[in-house]
Amino acid sequence: MKKNILFLVLIFGFYSLINAQEKLHNYIDPMIGSEGTGRVFIGPSCPYGMVKPSPDCTVSPNSGWLPMPKEVTGFSQVHVSGTGGGPKYGNIQVMPFSGALDKIDQTSFRAEENVKLGYYETVFKENNIKTEITTAEKVAFYRITYPEAASKEFKIDAGFFLGEKEIPNSRESQQFVGSEIEIISATEVRGYSRIRGGWNNGPAYTVFFWAEFDQPIAKYVTWKNGKLVANEPLQFDSSEKTGALLSFGNKGNKRLNVKIGISYLSASKAKNNIKVEIPHWDFNKVLSSLENKWEKIIKRITIAEDTSLEYKKMFYTGLYHTMLMPVDRSGENPLWNEVPYYDDFYCIWDTFRTSSPLITLIDPEREVDIVNAMLNIYKRDGYLPEGRSGNANGRTQGGSNAEVVLADAFVKNLKGIDYELALEAMLKDAEVPPGGNEEAEGRGGLVEYLSLGYIPYGIPRAGNRTIDYAYNDYNIATVAKGLGYNDIYERYIKQSSYWENLWRDNYEDEGFKGFIMPKDEDGNWLDAIVFGTSKIQKPTFKYTTHVKESPWYVCHWCVFFYEGDSWEYSFSLPHDIPEIIKKSGGSEVFKNRLNTFFDKDLYNVANEPSFLTPTLYHWIGRPDLSSDRIGKIIRNNFNATNFGLPGNDDSGAMSSWLAFHMMGLYPNAGQPYYLINTPMLEETKIEVQEGVYFKISTKNLSAKNRYIKQAYLNGKPYDKAWIMHEDIVKGGELTFTMSAKPSAWGTTILPPKKI
Amino acid sequence: MKKNILFLVLIFGFYSLINAQEKLHNYIDPMIGSEGTGRVFIGPSCPYGMVKPSPDCTVSPNSGWLPMPKEVTGFSQVHVSGTGGGPKYGNIQVMPFSGALDKIDQTSFRAEENVKLGYYETVFKENNIKTEITTAEKVAFYRITYPEAASKEFKIDAGFFLGEKEIPNSRESQQFVGSEIEIISATEVRGYSRIRGGWNNGPAYTVFFWAEFDQPIAKYVTWKNGKLVANEPLQFDSSEKTGALLSFGNKGNKRLNVKIGISYLSASKAKNNIKVEIPHWDFNKVLSSLENKWEKIIKRITIAEDTSLEYKKMFYTGLYHTMLMPVDRSGENPLWNEVPYYDDFYCIWDTFRTSSPLITLIDPEREVDIVNAMLNIYKRDGYLPEGRSGNANGRTQGGSNAEVVLADAFVKNLKGIDYELALEAMLKDAEVPPGGNEEAEGRGGLVEYLSLGYIPYGIPRAGNRTIDYAYNDYNIATVAKGLGYNDIYERYIKQSSYWENLWRDNYEDEGFKGFIMPKDEDGNWLDAIVFGTSKIQKPTFKYTTHVKESPWYVCHWCVFFYEGDSWEYSFSLPHDIPEIIKKSGGSEVFKNRLNTFFDKDLYNVANEPSFLTPTLYHWIGRPDLSSDRIGKIIRNNFNATNFGLPGNDDSGAMSSWLAFHMMGLYPNAGQPYYLINTPMLEETKIEVQEGVYFKISTKNLSAKNRYIKQAYLNGKPYDKAWIMHEDIVKGGELTFTMSAKPSAWGTTILPPKKI
Repeated sequence: MKKNILFLVLIFGFYSLINAQEKLHNYIDPMIGSEGTGRVFIGPSCPYGMVKPSPDCTVSPNSGWLPMPKEVTGFSQVHVSGTGGGPKYGNIQVMPFSGALDKIDQTSFRAEENVKLGYYETVFKENNIKTEITTAEKVAFYRITYPEAASKEFKIDAGFFLGEKEIPNSRESQQFVGSEIEIISATEVRGYSRIRGGWNNGPAYTVFFWAEFDQPIAKYVTWKNGKLVANEPLQFDSSEKTGALLSFGNKGNKRLNVKIGISYLSASKAKNNIKVEIPHWDFNKVLSSLENKWEKIIKRITIAEDTSLEYKKMFYTGLYHTMLMPVDRSGENPLWNEVPYYDDFYCIWDTFRTSSPLITLIDPEREVDIVNAMLNIYKRDGYLPEGRSGNANGRTQGGSNAEVVLADAFVKNLKGIDYELALEAMLKDAEVPPGGNEEAEGRGGLVEYLSLGYIPYGIPRAGNRTIDYAYNDYNIATVAKGLGYNDIYERYIKQSSYWENLWRDNYEDEGFKGFIMPKDEDGNWLDAIVFGTSKIQKPTFKYTTHVKESPWYVCHWCVFFYEGDSWEYSFSLPHDIPEIIKKSGGSEVFKNRLNTFFDKDLYNVANEPSFLTPTLYHWIGRPDLSSDRIGKIIRNNFNATNFGLPGNDDSGAMSSWLAFHMMGLYPNAGQPYYLINTPMLEETKIEVQEGVYFKISTKNLSAKNRYIKQAYLNGKPYDKAWIMHEDIVKGGELTFTMSAKPSAWGTTILPPKKI
Repeated sequence: MKKNILFLVLIFGFYSLINAQEKLHNYIDPMIGSEGTGRVFIGPSCPYGMVKPSPDCTVSPNSGWLPMPKEVTGFSQVHVSGTGGGPKYGNIQVMPFSGALDKIDQTSFRAEENVKLGYYETVFKENNIKTEITTAEKVAFYRITYPEAASKEFKIDAGFFLGEKEIPNSRESQQFVGSEIEIISATEVRGYSRIRGGWNNGPAYTVFFWAEFDQPIAKYVTWKNGKLVANEPLQFDSSEKTGALLSFGNKGNKRLNVKIGISYLSASKAKNNIKVEIPHWDFNKVLSSLENKWEKIIKRITIAEDTSLEYKKMFYTGLYHTMLMPVDRSGENPLWNEVPYYDDFYCIWDTFRTSSPLITLIDPEREVDIVNAMLNIYKRDGYLPEGRSGNANGRTQGGSNAEVVLADAFVKNLKGIDYELALEAMLKDAEVPPGGNEEAEGRGGLVEYLSLGYIPYGIPRAGNRTIDYAYNDYNIATVAKGLGYNDIYERYIKQSSYWENLWRDNYEDEGFKGFIMPKDEDGNWLDAIVFGTSKIQKPTFKYTTHVKESPWYVCHWCVFFYEGDSWEYSFSLPHDIPEIIKKSGGSEVFKNRLNTFFDKDLYNVANEPSFLTPTLYHWIGRPDLSSDRIGKIIRNNFNATNFGLPGNDDSGAMSSWLAFHMMGLYPNAGQPYYLINTPMLEETKIEVQEGVYFKISTKNLSAKNRYIKQAYLNGKPYDKAWIMHEDIVKGGELTFTMSAKPSAWGTTILPPKKI
């Protein structure tokens, strides 16, 4: 940590000289959220970049990286960011070393490590070898500096992958299928890694690579299945692990440059990716091109110059994390050749709430590409992705949340999307059971959901599936109505209330009545639930609003509420808040219920289903209370350190939640408006279209003056605590005068009702 | 034709000199069933061989080949045999030619064509170039002879595939995904073809190749997307079609030898396949090694020396066709690396009845491998295959017939199979609906089948699915009982009668009562069925026992009975014949009903569901009538010519049906016995275990003496017209004395009842 902050101070000092203040990408700190539970990817990556090189430490987490003093086994080329569960990827691992070509393991400790946008640097303790990494879209660039006296060796392990387990098909663990490596010339090596499984238990995917060196290979040893063979240029795929140890001797330039292109089509395509992206050997040129790509996007939002460094880093790093995934694999799809193609939706259950809306706000063309990629996946694979990785759908957690993303694009009027096809795809989710494939896509428990109006206990994740499907049905109703299909609208708007079938009115807890609770297929509420498989003994556990069923009573995926409890999920109906308020006993009771939820720590800041909950005070005309909650949550949980994220970033979900709240806006995904809260930033200027800006500014904002006294839209008083997307994208200015006391502002006109 | 027979006479003459009579493989004629509707693969192939090179004619059928005078566009390396529907494969097409490297199309007419086991030869009309082909398991060997004056050119088209259609995703048509080609050295070219779709509408599969020449390439032009480029050694995969035109000049040896290895893992694996299988340039050595592989297997059945040449050819070609598929791809699976692995089950709906039982009888070790490959597919893909091709399950036609194959292995006591796992896999089919994936695997309509006891009209193929599932449930009951799971047995033996729910007792046709007929979900029998999608007009069609719904009223896959009608399918209950006889009104009525079925040509010899029907007389104690029918059917429909098969051979289904009947045995797959009929062969000797033989011999067999007067098993009178598998595999001798009149033999002890 200390070293890291020191380093950042240094580069900022350095950069301020040459780039002056306007280079916003200097505020991106890839280390934010890297420690604790954030699990972000810390290596270099272009926006939505396909190659993501990073050190892999032992025992590797999903991102590969762990803080010093953990050992580094090498640097693999593909990673994901912020995910939980079993790891995915970690393919084509390289490692510089010095010495004999006589052993595969070259694990080393780090003496130092420095990270900034697009740049990773470490020096190994044992051998003083310095490794620097930057990347283009599909090509990683390594600059290795060996000590003067040392010989220059380099390992390429085509058999390595993250999360290896002994058990042949253990759930969520990657499994080896095949690999190949070949020394092509004195300066070229190619091969591939073929792996199946991982978090989404997906079928085999293949990462091909092509490596180029700026010095000739003097000597090499290749291996298969642990057996080293000198001067054997080819280890073909015989379903065994392969790799190569290369020596560049100890003469000549101590700096070895290595380009590693990857591809999902072939090694020759990877070679061509190098030719197209990095036809030179200039490390800094690759780095500055990456910086410019990020600068170009993030500068669409500028914030007040005098914003604190911490807030600048938190905000721009938030944007950065949001744009690491999904990954743009257009032209790299081994399954079909329609473009655009994106992979690593990991998962939409996490990202639909704030990541997609943030991309839509600052980079709508990109969101159109992502949505069209989702529709191509539906066309060719048969179902929209919920999660997707390694070119395969999987896995579903709750709803079929692609519906939210499509509806969000529709209500925000994104052009260039075939919404008729989108509706067809949504209806496939909603009407065709995925059967034995429900782990990968579609809606598990759909048959029961449609026949009973809820999913009975016993079907995994019955609770959150029921309420998510109800929301997804609302999304379908929204698009159907917009396209003029009233029969479809009528049916789905009705189903969007199915969550009420699990609302147990008279169930009381903490003095509040009414919770989403488990029900069996005969319609009985369940208080005592049988567990275990014994036919003689029938042990039961008591189901309460606080119960944690897993792992004590049932498996992780078999619970009633996935990653949460009744308290949390009973607030998690983004389309029906007024109905929950009514069922809970009206505004006053609801306010107290919310207060209890937060004050008694029933709220889980790390859990996406509760993303919207702190803003629910808006629906009882108390935006001031929403802002108080949000401010407190952020102060207590978010900062600009390695521990700056309170939970898995989940491909940028956490980070985009933060970025929105710092601006004072918060989307309700699938619906055409944003809730307005007290911004953390005095001024935010968004380029909503080329040359068209929407500015959010504050007067007298301070820790004390934290309440919006009055708002003005384009100079006119604006009394709503929410604003339509269309009012933002046409450009304009929203101004807040702040005060130390809550005001009447935003208390009367509540957020839009159900369509 | 004439030329072909002449040629056969010639080679037989030739061979009899060197090999004497005992070389049984000389009786294999790959041309039998090549014309008309047989659609067999006519090129060289090892038993279950992975590479299947053959000419592709325009417009190519599934096998690629068409009779002269059709043009040949080239020779591709992968084909299937005897299949219907949209084509699959046809990858990596090569073509010799003479002249400038200035055009991709080198289509030519054949002046002559000669085919024998493992050998294909043709001479092109335009340029007199002679092409000879033979193969190893994974490597095709081409011997090209150019005319003296001509220059030696050779085309490799990595973009070609069978059944290309314009419409991007038209059903059952293969679609291009990607390809690559690279000139590696003066004598080596590699690349791949990546294609999706085809009959099973499968995901993308990749055929890699490595080509080696015995002469140096003098000049070359490669192409991408139709654009020819001189001296460009690499056309990498940019999702476009690629290929190469190679020139070997006009000097030197006029005979060019080409080895083309294929692999589903990588081009380097294909190269290694060459190294392992054909480390030399001796065409004849490859051919004789192939001949020996076939000889080794087929000589496990020897027949009377003085059998007619026609019968010898019909019989041994029958065995040959049965062992072309499925394809042994062990060590060539890009999805997982457990072996054994087999692909191209195309489809089990066709092959479970006679192909699997025939392999079990003469090559049980092979059948164990095939079954274990099916179990590996279940373990890794989640469902057993019904159809499978291009490394993906699909498509289902009727039942989940893997159950029959597993039950057949179980009741015939094949060792080395995990039957607990087999039962688990069968129960997955029977209990977990495949949902949106029902086209690929599992049981479509399962939910209705389980809740109603039948599949209501409207769900595609409701009729044959219902009766097939009932039979598949019987297979499950069989295995469950054998493993001691009585609760499972009880449940499934009950379900094995579900076909009765579609038996319409009082429905009368041709003077017979009771047929399997369509019923709606409310239990109403349907006589008039609404078709079309109009909401105003409701046109109906009359459903009868003879109706052909498709294509006039509903789509090919939407019919009530797939490829058949009520008359056919009402006999198609292999486990419940006594019950059909009872429901039909007893033995006499049933006999007349069968007679009417055959005499009025309601029987379709080309249709697998009717495979068992000619032997149903056994169940009313009239094996003589079964034999009469079978004899007549074979005489009228089967012979040793190119037109020798009456319908699609379907991976050997037709051919194995014939082979069994020629021996006088017929299996009822999934059950442990064979029905005994009058053999066509005077003597058959089967090596049932190493050094253990079971001999079937006849006394006085002739066209006139076609009835079994008395049978003897190991010398003792044997009065049953059926025999248990265990009595055959322990070895022994079954002798028949024949007479001109039906006798009392086999009339009293009927085939085994339901377990």
